[in-house]
Amino acid sequence: MKEKKFEWRTAISKVEPNKIIIRGYPLDEIIGKKSFGEVVYLLWMGKFPTKEEGKMINAILVSGCDHSLAAPSADATRFVASSGVPLQASVASGIIALGEYHGGSIEGCAKILQEGVKESEKQNKGLAQIADEIVQKHHLQKKRILGFGHPYHKSDPRTKKLSKLAEDLKLYKKHCKLVFEIEKSIENMLNKKIILNVDGVIAAITSDMGFPYKYGKGFYIVSRAAGLVAHAIEQEEREKPFKAIPLDQIIYDGPEEKTL
Amino acid sequence: MKEKKFEWRTAISKVEPNKIIIRGYPLDEIIGKKSFGEVVYLLWMGKFPTKEEGKMINAILVSGCDHSLAAPSADATRFVASSGVPLQASVASGIIALGEYHGGSIEGCAKILQEGVKESEKQNKGLAQIADEIVQKHHLQKKRILGFGHPYHKSDPRTKKLSKLAEDLKLYKKHCKLVFEIEKSIENMLNKKIILNVDGVIAAITSDMGFPYKYGKGFYIVSRAAGLVAHAIEQEEREKPFKAIPLDQIIYDGPEEKTL
Amino acid sequence: MKEKKFEWRTAISKVEPNKIIIRGYPLDEIIGKKSFGEVVYLLWMGKFPTKEEGKMINAILVSGCDHSLAAPSADATRFVASSGVPLQASVASGIIALGEYHGGSIEGCAKILQEGVKESEKQNKGLAQIADEIVQKHHLQKKRILGFGHPYHKSDPRTKKLSKLAEDLKLYKKHCKLVFEIEKSIENMLNKKIILNVDGVIAAITSDMGFPYKYGKGFYIVSRAAGLVAHAIEQEEREKPFKAIPLDQIIYDGPEEKTL
Amino acid sequence: MKEKKFEWRTAISKVEPNKIIIRGYPLDEIIGKKSFGEVVYLLWMGKFPTKEEGKMINAILVSGCDHSLAAPSADATRFVASSGVPLQASVASGIIALGEYHGGSIEGCAKILQEGVKESEKQNKGLAQIADEIVQKHHLQKKRILGFGHPYHKSDPRTKKLSKLAEDLKLYKKHCKLVFEIEKSIENMLNKKIILNVDGVIAAITSDMGFPYKYGKGFYIVSRAAGLVAHAIEQEEREKPFKAIPLDQIIYDGPEEKTL
Repeated sequence: MKEKKFEWRTAISKVEPNKIIIRGYPLDEIIGKKSFGEVVYLLWMGKFPTKEEGKMINAILVSGCDHSLAAPSADATRFVASSGVPLQASVASGIIALGEYHGGSIEGCAKILQEGVKESEKQNKGLAQIADEIVQKHHLQKKRILGFGHPYHKSDPRTKKLSKLAEDLKLYKKHCKLVFEIEKSIENMLNKKIILNVDGVIAAITSDMGFPYKYGKGFYIVSRAAGLVAHAIEQEEREKPFKAIPLDQIIYDGPEEKTL
Repeated sequence: MKEKKFEWRTAISKVEPNKIIIRGYPLDEIIGKKSFGEVVYLLWMGKFPTKEEGKMINAILVSGCDHSLAAPSADATRFVASSGVPLQASVASGIIALGEYHGGSIEGCAKILQEGVKESEKQNKGLAQIADEIVQKHHLQKKRILGFGHPYHKSDPRTKKLSKLAEDLKLYKKHCKLVFEIEKSIENMLNKKIILNVDGVIAAITSDMGFPYKYGKGFYIVSRAAGLVAHAIEQEEREKPFKAIPLDQIIYDGPEEKTL
Repeated sequence: MKEKKFEWRTAISKVEPNKIIIRGYPLDEIIGKKSFGEVVYLLWMGKFPTKEEGKMINAILVSGCDHSLAAPSADATRFVASSGVPLQASVASGIIALGEYHGGSIEGCAKILQEGVKESEKQNKGLAQIADEIVQKHHLQKKRILGFGHPYHKSDPRTKKLSKLAEDLKLYKKHCKLVFEIEKSIENMLNKKIILNVDGVIAAITSDMGFPYKYGKGFYIVSRAAGLVAHAIEQEEREKPFKAIPLDQIIYDGPEEKTL
Repeated sequence: MKEKKFEWRTAISKVEPNKIIIRGYPLDEIIGKKSFGEVVYLLWMGKFPTKEEGKMINAILVSGCDHSLAAPSADATRFVASSGVPLQASVASGIIALGEYHGGSIEGCAKILQEGVKESEKQNKGLAQIADEIVQKHHLQKKRILGFGHPYHKSDPRTKKLSKLAEDLKLYKKHCKLVFEIEKSIENMLNKKIILNVDGVIAAITSDMGFPYKYGKGFYIVSRAAGLVAHAIEQEEREKPFKAIPLDQIIYDGPEEKTL
C-alpha cells in the first residue's frame, strides 16, 4: 500500500527562483495572452487548446458559475459563512458538496459516453444502437442515466446553448451525437421525455474534446467556486452572524423526553 | 445573534423553471459571449467589466493557477487525494489552506492600499507620504507588510507582467502607484529590498478596479482550484494510494517510552 | 518564511512496526484502561489527567455533542450529506463551521480569562476588580464579551451542570471564579443580565485545568463531530438526495432582468 | 429528485429555550454521569449502551486516536495548519482524508461481515464456510479484503488488544468469529498470512454491537479528530508558517521549457 520510494514529483509545473513553468510554458509569457479558460485546458490536458476549444472551455465554465440558493453547495456555504470563518473555508465547505448528486453527473455521464463510443468503434455498431443498449441496461437495473433530468428545468437553457455552440465551433462529434441519441432512445423506449441536462451536455462536449472523464467534475469545481465566493461574501455583508434553522421550524420526531 | 426573520435572499442570481438569471442577465445569453474571467467580475461586482478589465481579470486568474508542489495547498491536496476520496473533497482540503500565509496577503494588502488611498484623498497627502507612514507604522509594530517578500522569488515574474499589463490596459491607478511607493519606501527607510510579490500587485490592481478587499482571496481560490484539480488527478493516476510520510523520515522527540 | 531544514518531527506519537506510542505510552496498554476523554487530555497535555480531571473532560465533551438543527454546522452537514459524498466529507464541511461565532467563544473567552488571572497575580489585584476592568474595556470598545449570552437559552442548562461538577470535583479555581465575577460585573455595571453560556464555562474550567486557550475549540471539534456523524447519516437514511432551498422560498432582490 | 415538502426534521435531539434533549434524555442529566464514549453510542444508536458496551466504545475511540505523521490525514492537517487558518479548518482538511484507503475499511469490512452473518443465518451455513466463500470471491475478482493487511504492522498491537477486550466484555460474537475465520481462510486458501488490522477488528466488534456498517467510519472520524487537533496546534506552536515541499525535493518530469 505504501509507496516504496517516497518522492515528490509532478509534470504539471516547475518552480525555480524567479521562474514558474506551467506544462512547459513560462507563466509570465502566458499571462495576458491566454484566457483563464485556455489555461485550465493547458493545466489538465498538457497543451494549449485551439481557439475554438478555448472558447468552448470558457463557455462551459460560465455555464456552471451559479444556480442561486437552489443548490446544496451554496446553502452549505451560506451557513458556514455565517459562522465567522475565512472566505476560503466557507467556499471549501460548499465545494465538498459537489458530490454524486450535485454536479457528479458530468463525470458519470462522460464515462458512459466514452465507453459507448469506444464500444461503437470496436464493435462497429451505430451510435443509435449503442444508445438503445445503454437505455435498456439502465432500465433493467432500475438506474437513472446520469446527465438526464432536472428537478427545476424541463428544458435546460444552458444545454441548448452549449450544444449549439459546440456545433458552431465544430466541436460536436461522436460523444455529442451519442448523448442526443440517448435522449431519443429514452423517449422511444421508455415513452417519456427526460431532458438532457447541463451536466450531460458538458460530459458530451468535453469527451469530444478529449478530456478523460475524471476531469468532468473539475469544470464544475472551478466554475462554481466563483459563485460560492459571491455567496459567502453576500452572506457576511448582508446577513447577521450565526444563521441556523429557527427552533420553530425544526420538527423533532425522536423519543419522548425521559430520565436516565 | 439569531436572525429574527428566517429567510433566504440573494441578489446574485435567480432560478426559475427553464431560466437562470445572473446579476440580471440570462445565463444562456452570456454563455459563449463572455469569457469566464468576465463572468467572475459580473458575479462579484454586479456588472460586466470593460474589455480591458475583462482581460485583466483573466490575467490575474492565470497568474495564480499553480505553483507546483511548493505550496501547502497542493501538498495537502496530494495527501488527501491519495486516501481515496472524490475529486471535489481533495481539492477542497487544499483550498482550505489558502489562509493568512498562503494567498491571504491579497486581502490584507488590498485593505492597506484602500485605506491608504482614502487617507490620501481625505487628508490631501501625497501617496509617497502615505507609503512612508505605512512602512513606518509596520516597522514600529514589527509587522510584515502584506504583499511584499517571497520565499523563492527575489524578482517575481508574475508581478512584473501583471503590473505592465495594468499599465497597458490603463488600469494602473492610485492603488498601483501606492504599492510601488511602498516598495520604494521599504528600500529607503529600512535600507533593504523586499520585493512586491504577486499577491501585492493583484491587491493593487483589483483595488484600482474597484473590488472591495474581501474579494482579494476570491481570485486566488478560483484560480488555484484549477491547479489543485490537476494535482489531485495526477496523484491518483500516477502514484500509489495512501501517501504518508515514511516511518524513517519522522523524528519523534516526545517523552521516552514508559508504562502506565 | 520557508523552513530552513525541511523535516517531519512530532512529540505526539511514534509509530514503529507493531508498536504505537502516544506521548510515551504504548497505545495497546491504554486501550481498555482509559476512557476516550482521558486520552484526549493525554494527547493535548502530554500526560494523563487525574481521575477527577478525566471525569471533567468527559463531561465537557458530552456537553457539546449536539444542538439539533439549531446550529450552522449541523445545517451545513445536512445539505452536503444530501449531495452524495462520503461520511467524512459531510462531517468535515460542518466542522469548518465551528468558527468565531459558533463555538469560537471557548478559545476567545479562555484567552480573556487566562490573561485576567495572570494580570491579577502580577498586579496583586482581586478577581472582582479584574472582572470590572474586563467588562468596562469591552463596553468602551463596544465589543461583546465572548462566552456570554445565547440566542436561545436564557439559563443554559449545560452551564449550571458543568460548573457544579467542577466544584464537586475540586476543579473550580481562579478562572472559574473570574468568569462568574464577570457575569456579576455585567449585571452591576451594564444593568442587564447576560448569562454565562456553555462556551464560557468550558473556557473557565479548561483554563483551571491548565489547557492553553488554543485548545478551547478542540473540545468542541471532537465533541460535535459525534453529533455531525449522526446528522449526516440521518440525512442519508431518511431524506431524499439533493436537499436545496425550494425556488419559492428564495427571494431574489438583485437587478431586474435585462439583455446584454 | 427534489424534496416535495421542504422541512427540517430530526430524531437526534431537540432544543427548546433552556433545554436540550439528546435521544430523549435531557443533556444536563447526562453530563457528568456518562462518559463521552457512551454518549457517542447514544447519539448513533438511540439508546444508552450497557456498561460493557460503553467500555468497548471508549476502547475503540482510544485505539484510533493517532498514528503519528504516518497518516495522510495528519500530514494534510500539518500543511494546512502552517498556512494560517483557524483550528477547525485545518482539522477538517485532515478529516476529509479519512477516505477509502485511510480508515475506510471499517465501513467496507463491516458490510462484508454483516452480509456474511446474514447469509450464514439465512442459508444455515457455518461461518467457516462463509469465510471461505468471501475469500474465494475476492480472490477471483482480484480484490483486497477490506480490514486485512497493514503497510507497517505485521502484527497490529491494537487488533489483539481490542479483540481480547471484546472477549472479556462478552461482546465477541458472530461477526468477530467470522472475521477471524476469514483470517484463517486467507492463510489456508491463499497460502499467505495477511493479518487482521485495526479497521477489521473494529468492523467486527461494532457489528457485533449492532451498529449499521455506515457508522464504521464515524468512530474513526471522532477518534482521529482528537489527534488532528494535537497535530494542528503542534504545527503552529513549533514550526514556521508556510510549510511546503522545498524546491530541491520536487522532481519535475513534465515537458521541457518552451515558448508560446
